[in-house]
Amino acid sequence: MFLYYIKNNFNSINVLCYNKTMEKKISDKVINRLTLYHCILTDYIEKKIEFISSKQIAGLLNIDDSQVRKDINLLNNSGKNRVGYIVKELKISIEKTLGFKKTKKAFIIGAGNLGTAIANYGNFKDYGLNILSLFDNSPEKIGKVINGMEIQDIKKLPEIAKKEEADIAILTVPARYAQSTADFLVNANIKYIWNFAPVVLSVPSDVQVWNENLMGNFLQFTYDI
Amino acid sequence: MFLYYIKNNFNSINVLCYNKTMEKKISDKVINRLTLYHCILTDYIEKKIEFISSKQIAGLLNIDDSQVRKDINLLNNSGKNRVGYIVKELKISIEKTLGFKKTKKAFIIGAGNLGTAIANYGNFKDYGLNILSLFDNSPEKIGKVINGMEIQDIKKLPEIAKKEEADIAILTVPARYAQSTADFLVNANIKYIWNFAPVVLSVPSDVQVWNENLMGNFLQFTYDI
Repeated sequence: MFLYYIKNNFNSINVLCYNKTMEKKISDKVINRLTLYHCILTDYIEKKIEFISSKQIAGLLNIDDSQVRKDINLLNNSGKNRVGYIVKELKISIEKTLGFKKTKKAFIIGAGNLGTAIANYGNFKDYGLNILSLFDNSPEKIGKVINGMEIQDIKKLPEIAKKEEADIAILTVPARYAQSTADFLVNANIKYIWNFAPVVLSVPSDVQVWNENLMGNFLQFTYDI
Repeated sequence: MFLYYIKNNFNSINVLCYNKTMEKKISDKVINRLTLYHCILTDYIEKKIEFISSKQIAGLLNIDDSQVRKDINLLNNSGKNRVGYIVKELKISIEKTLGFKKTKKAFIIGAGNLGTAIANYGNFKDYGLNILSLFDNSPEKIGKVINGMEIQDIKKLPEIAKKEEADIAILTVPARYAQSTADFLVNANIKYIWNFAPVVLSVPSDVQVWNENLMGNFLQFTYDI
């Protein structure tokens, strides 16, 4: 896949992805929707349902079914018949397009409630996110294991990140420690920071930050109330 | 403010807000950016810095400063001089435009790690989100207090929601309980569900769901790695 990259976004990076064989772009919004379709398909497989229609997907997400069909047309998916899409095949098509199979290694920084919640979140591995371990500076937490992942001493991060060739950090420390921790991560050669702290981080230009701007989301969601 | 409403979005609602006095629209992306500017301004106030330029804001968010100026032009903000924007005045302008002062009451459903993390998140109240209490069904948790908020018995939710006239729920239960809990919330007359579970919920059309699609965000963020 050829990636066309625009770095003009506020809290993230706009990635327009060209699917080589189909020469169509896949935008951020489509990536987001495809992830939600995948979520629905996983549920259908658990319920042993074999087929799904664009109307069923659209109904669950409260969107237009023509949008669903348009998104699915971007995939190399041939699994469609009179009854609808073949659930298993559609799921695999989404995984291939979104690159779930290419595993990305990451660390959780901060083993508080939020870090622990993310460690327990469940299906990250299915989506190609391999969280290797958590890091904290609290002696009471270091050595404990959460969902199969050890909490390690933050001092060891630079060495472990180098050894594992991992450069993604999920930052879950309290707001007041976020900038100093980010500085430490940058020095440890971390290049991608998924920031859950409600703080705008100052980082060098070769480090990318994705802000989980929870308050922004809430304000968008409830603007009309 | 007059709200123009498009309900064609995948996991949310696109709200285009017309600022009455200026007759300009404020889109979701602008709301998101303004929240991040607000975050920066709060930090500047703590550091007792009086002025800020569009370049400084743009630098922190890795965006173009013309974008920042354009966004700020949407506000009714007159606090600009040769040195830059007056930090305190700009902050107030953003708060007025985004309606921070109009408090919205909400409940956290699920007092696990994620619910606890959100209860401790810090500055939600500054943004007009007033979390009244947490709800859980675990006898060990009920009665405990987190960050000044009591964990109450989920059975009491319908009565309390009615009494408080609150209809926003922040859903943080594990994925496998998300749908049944959502059904319970719908019966309790909850109209807005901020869903943190990685599950697409099936709800009646008069109930609105905002999915915090963490995996979708991660995939967008790391698409180029």
